[in-house]
Amino acid sequence: MGRTHSNAYKRIGDFFPELNHKIVLKAVCSRSANKVQAFAEQWGYESFETDWKALVAREDIDAVDICTPNDSHAEIAIAAAAAGKMILCEKPLSRTLEEGKQMVEAIEKAGVANTVWYNYRRIPAVTLAKQIIDGGKLGKIFHYRANFLQDWTISADLPQGGEGLWRLDVDAAGSGVTGDLLAHCIDTALWLNGSIKDVSAMTETFVKERVHQLTGQVQKVGIDDACIFHCHFENGSLGLFESTRYARGHKALYTLEINGEHASLRWDLHDLNRLEFFDHSDESIVRGWRSIHVTDGDQPYMDKWWVPGLSIGYEHSFVHQAADFVKSIENGQPCSPTFRDSLETQRVCEAVIASGKTRSWQQLSAY
Amino acid sequence: MGRTHSNAYKRIGDFFPELNHKIVLKAVCSRSANKVQAFAEQWGYESFETDWKALVAREDIDAVDICTPNDSHAEIAIAAAAAGKMILCEKPLSRTLEEGKQMVEAIEKAGVANTVWYNYRRIPAVTLAKQIIDGGKLGKIFHYRANFLQDWTISADLPQGGEGLWRLDVDAAGSGVTGDLLAHCIDTALWLNGSIKDVSAMTETFVKERVHQLTGQVQKVGIDDACIFHCHFENGSLGLFESTRYARGHKALYTLEINGEHASLRWDLHDLNRLEFFDHSDESIVRGWRSIHVTDGDQPYMDKWWVPGLSIGYEHSFVHQAADFVKSIENGQPCSPTFRDSLETQRVCEAVIASGKTRSWQQLSAY
Amino acid sequence: MGRTHSNAYKRIGDFFPELNHKIVLKAVCSRSANKVQAFAEQWGYESFETDWKALVAREDIDAVDICTPNDSHAEIAIAAAAAGKMILCEKPLSRTLEEGKQMVEAIEKAGVANTVWYNYRRIPAVTLAKQIIDGGKLGKIFHYRANFLQDWTISADLPQGGEGLWRLDVDAAGSGVTGDLLAHCIDTALWLNGSIKDVSAMTETFVKERVHQLTGQVQKVGIDDACIFHCHFENGSLGLFESTRYARGHKALYTLEINGEHASLRWDLHDLNRLEFFDHSDESIVRGWRSIHVTDGDQPYMDKWWVPGLSIGYEHSFVHQAADFVKSIENGQPCSPTFRDSLETQRVCEAVIASGKTRSWQQLSAY
Amino acid sequence: MGRTHSNAYKRIGDFFPELNHKIVLKAVCSRSANKVQAFAEQWGYESFETDWKALVAREDIDAVDICTPNDSHAEIAIAAAAAGKMILCEKPLSRTLEEGKQMVEAIEKAGVANTVWYNYRRIPAVTLAKQIIDGGKLGKIFHYRANFLQDWTISADLPQGGEGLWRLDVDAAGSGVTGDLLAHCIDTALWLNGSIKDVSAMTETFVKERVHQLTGQVQKVGIDDACIFHCHFENGSLGLFESTRYARGHKALYTLEINGEHASLRWDLHDLNRLEFFDHSDESIVRGWRSIHVTDGDQPYMDKWWVPGLSIGYEHSFVHQAADFVKSIENGQPCSPTFRDSLETQRVCEAVIASGKTRSWQQLSAY
Repeated sequence: MGRTHSNAYKRIGDFFPELNHKIVLKAVCSRSANKVQAFAEQWGYESFETDWKALVAREDIDAVDICTPNDSHAEIAIAAAAAGKMILCEKPLSRTLEEGKQMVEAIEKAGVANTVWYNYRRIPAVTLAKQIIDGGKLGKIFHYRANFLQDWTISADLPQGGEGLWRLDVDAAGSGVTGDLLAHCIDTALWLNGSIKDVSAMTETFVKERVHQLTGQVQKVGIDDACIFHCHFENGSLGLFESTRYARGHKALYTLEINGEHASLRWDLHDLNRLEFFDHSDESIVRGWRSIHVTDGDQPYMDKWWVPGLSIGYEHSFVHQAADFVKSIENGQPCSPTFRDSLETQRVCEAVIASGKTRSWQQLSAY
Repeated sequence: MGRTHSNAYKRIGDFFPELNHKIVLKAVCSRSANKVQAFAEQWGYESFETDWKALVAREDIDAVDICTPNDSHAEIAIAAAAAGKMILCEKPLSRTLEEGKQMVEAIEKAGVANTVWYNYRRIPAVTLAKQIIDGGKLGKIFHYRANFLQDWTISADLPQGGEGLWRLDVDAAGSGVTGDLLAHCIDTALWLNGSIKDVSAMTETFVKERVHQLTGQVQKVGIDDACIFHCHFENGSLGLFESTRYARGHKALYTLEINGEHASLRWDLHDLNRLEFFDHSDESIVRGWRSIHVTDGDQPYMDKWWVPGLSIGYEHSFVHQAADFVKSIENGQPCSPTFRDSLETQRVCEAVIASGKTRSWQQLSAY
Repeated sequence: MGRTHSNAYKRIGDFFPELNHKIVLKAVCSRSANKVQAFAEQWGYESFETDWKALVAREDIDAVDICTPNDSHAEIAIAAAAAGKMILCEKPLSRTLEEGKQMVEAIEKAGVANTVWYNYRRIPAVTLAKQIIDGGKLGKIFHYRANFLQDWTISADLPQGGEGLWRLDVDAAGSGVTGDLLAHCIDTALWLNGSIKDVSAMTETFVKERVHQLTGQVQKVGIDDACIFHCHFENGSLGLFESTRYARGHKALYTLEINGEHASLRWDLHDLNRLEFFDHSDESIVRGWRSIHVTDGDQPYMDKWWVPGLSIGYEHSFVHQAADFVKSIENGQPCSPTFRDSLETQRVCEAVIASGKTRSWQQLSAY
Repeated sequence: MGRTHSNAYKRIGDFFPELNHKIVLKAVCSRSANKVQAFAEQWGYESFETDWKALVAREDIDAVDICTPNDSHAEIAIAAAAAGKMILCEKPLSRTLEEGKQMVEAIEKAGVANTVWYNYRRIPAVTLAKQIIDGGKLGKIFHYRANFLQDWTISADLPQGGEGLWRLDVDAAGSGVTGDLLAHCIDTALWLNGSIKDVSAMTETFVKERVHQLTGQVQKVGIDDACIFHCHFENGSLGLFESTRYARGHKALYTLEINGEHASLRWDLHDLNRLEFFDHSDESIVRGWRSIHVTDGDQPYMDKWWVPGLSIGYEHSFVHQAADFVKSIENGQPCSPTFRDSLETQRVCEAVIASGKTRSWQQLSAY
């Protein structure tokens, strides 16, 4: 994710000239001196550190961007907040709800600007969905569904833990697909469709043991390989969520759909420039799902890029969030999702995991 | 459904010349004399009845096809079995598991040929999916998901009960989308992926009261408008099912997908001639979901129809089942799904409804 | 095609009860006594003939349906007209424009009801396209394009001529893809977009010699394997047409698209129940191609079939034309396309073939 | 295009660390001092010029990138070559074949590195198509077709000429859609399918007069609004090309398809990360077009970007070409398409325009 964030910072000057502030890449930090030095040179960071505490202590640093595995988010964020730094944190906010609460408390006490990189909110097609929903076109909502399907951990020979594989190690990640993938789906859902009341989940670990890359030992796998849950939203609609890394044929299939009384919307990360829209008020004989190629200048963020019909990619969502973060500072407004916003996602994740374990409905109010 | 079945019987002579038996449309039965006479004339039935008991008592009738609302399936089937008739019954088999058990007992005691019209098994693309799965191409199965989404009952002004609307009346239908739509999804799932162990469901009735068409009174709605459940299959895979009549934009979107270790399959009723297939053993740089237009002579049932590329429709699945039923009689083999096969679908439906009501997991072994 | 037509006649009684006339299958004719007898029995024809002249001479025959190879269309049609029979003729009308002119003259002189089986006009999605265009929604037309791509003659080992392969024999067929496939595209185009002024074509025969199935000799192939042409329509729009039997991967890909000032339409035979529609008057941020699943009761012909979302197939277009033919007789109106209508298609085909041969533009007025 | 190119130069350092050279943005040039200064500041150019001759004369400039309207390509390129600069030129190479010949002569005499920005060759899906074709998977080629459809000039109120609209002014552009859009299709076609032998074209100008933005006068429109041509390739296959700015509903629909004896390929700019592939050697019952999401590390260029399933956009094709240009200098190899390669595209364009005017086939050997 370091590459994605660095790219975002470097591009906002070029594509968002209305911003009054310029991002300066003062320093990058990673435990491996060799690697971090090479990264700093490649990406044009002025300096590098191998101890994040040193970085946080530096006076020339205004903002800290946390791209580490989940198990260090809380510690770094709390320290950075204490040092008065603005904080941008990779998702999920934390491994557990409790960690998340401590982070929110720290950051709000410090009063520093903050955001969490739930980048999919700023895919133009998703932002457009938000506009359409907020405009009231859908009417009463009946259904929300989302899934995030991958297939990269099917092989039982894949190790867990360590470089590139910490997402499979429950100690580093906190959970499996719930925190990694469903957290994205939940964040978007809360944004588009409001709060969740209760959840009923099923989790599964298909491969029970894997070699741990750091210890070389075969160890029990602690993460959820798959997680499915249904829920009630506060607005009365039903939610359905699924995530897995065992859906052969899907690389990163994040899809969402929302069905309202008057209209419906669908989106799919694999074709991220398209939004599908069904409007029941269209004349009946020519009614159908519209495939909207969200690349026109009057659609969200697209005045910054190319002419109609020309696609943008995944990383642009980070560029948009970085630009919005700078804008939010200039405007004195929060940049959503804030740590507090993301705590709600964490709350749902915690209830989902608990529901999977206890095989029972969980009220969100209990979290 | 009377039209669909009648059409099936009339076409098998033309398209399945290898059959040694010819269907004769001896009589059609319905309570309204006017309507049934007109229907008999239009479709070429030799005679008609207005009392099903009279029909069942006739000696010139070999087989009885039950297309009535669900609340009379059991009574008719049991009487027809007692009279030694072969029986073809519309789905769902029954309103309740208990009714279904009585029907199976009656039919097996009588030893008569029987089948239930879960017609989607015989859409060529679905039959091909079965062949591919049985051929072992998918390997260990991880996920099965299906949904059946409609949008025709969103208006609160729609009455319940009576002509054309008995599906909204719990007394006639037994349940809402569970018996009407999910039953299809469950039947196919059991056929393609084996038995289900346990289920956890959520049901919802969005419109709480509707005018009853027969009484003219506003009455409580007793059916489930939407039903979502997840489950474990005996083979270790996870199942996810959803059905609703409140998904704006979907007319009859029955989709299914199955993800295995080596390959995956997807199908969609709206484009019923296509099967999507992902084969991980394809060379990696040219690997992708294949869109198979199932219209070639070497694909199931398609030697009976047109040249490659030319589609068939919904009603052909009934023609196939009617032909298979005749074939099964000639071969002395059961015609799946039999009443007993369909009792399993009923068992799952019963557990799903119970789970929705009790908000708890239900073991299938308890049903 | 005999099966397709027979099926059409047998189904209109069931599905078009408003018709006052009933089709009686009096006799079927084919040169092989064995085959035709079996066909008559299978399909329920009352009798059969092996000499078409005997059939045409029969007094109990009101209408003659010509499903023979193209080289006998003219002779049979002219004789049937002389005998006062109504005539339904498979497309293309004739091998040459000259033959077609003689047929039209004969039929108009006899004053008999007539139609040519350009069945694709009566796919509901195509009929809906016609309604939308006639309603003026597209405005001034700029472009019309269509193709019909197949891949079944790529193998040089495929023989030409005789049973099942007469389409590859120029003497029997008149031309290759031009008369067989482009004729469909041209018929629809003339119907939807009006007359053509001039054409410029390219034709190709990829496999120069094939064994003739009847003679056993390797003979020169006389048909066009592929044909591409562009043209001007009278309304000022540009036309682009392509057909081939060498497009690997396409079984019967007939697609058409029409672009107007205000709106556009697209259709594809492989997914024949869908019509795509783009309406520029939609609000700009939610504008996109609509995928219309043409299966609702208010869409052409669909009140005859199933509930919304349930597809029909290829052969239904023949059922619709058979029903419309009967209706046209009852109304005393012509059933389009008539022989005269189809002569225009023949005129375009003749100009296209001539253009391919001479490598020059051809004015339609010269034909 | 200045933004697209500038972005490309700035990103190759980050994403192509294996390059030994770093691009330095020494100067940007444009006639308007205000605009060019702002652009220089926004994009980080060290300096700016308002006279391209001054830029070309500067000793600190190693390479000149020409992004001007077509009418100055030749003059600048010839001067830059004389000054010994490397040259990157926007497409089309020139307004006319004659201009192009002079440019090639100048550049080859000077012996400077050169390339033309036919960027679509370096969309990963298109590059993958080239790999598949070169690997022989398609066998003998029968058909190549491409189109580039837009709809932005339908309004007759749109002026021609000047800022943002020079593409509508024949003096500045040389031609309309032929040089602007078809040139892309031709470049890719020559690359994927080899040389073209002869062409037969139709061109049209739908809107005959427009206000000229610079003169304020209503003037005759000299460009082609639409152009269609068919052709023979040297390898015996047939080509079909179409371009227009009057296809309502299409923003930038560049699609290409190639049909071979054994396999076929399709691509569409609107969903640029996908390549469709049909392989006839697949087992017949599971044969179908594969939708390949070209986002894996073993697919062209994709090791530089994100994890599988995550899309890239339009501008990445420029980044790839910029990186390849630097690489080509380091390797001492030409960077395709060179000026000479692009002269072939120019030759086809010239023949196409001539064919449209003369309504006759044109042999490429005559150009």
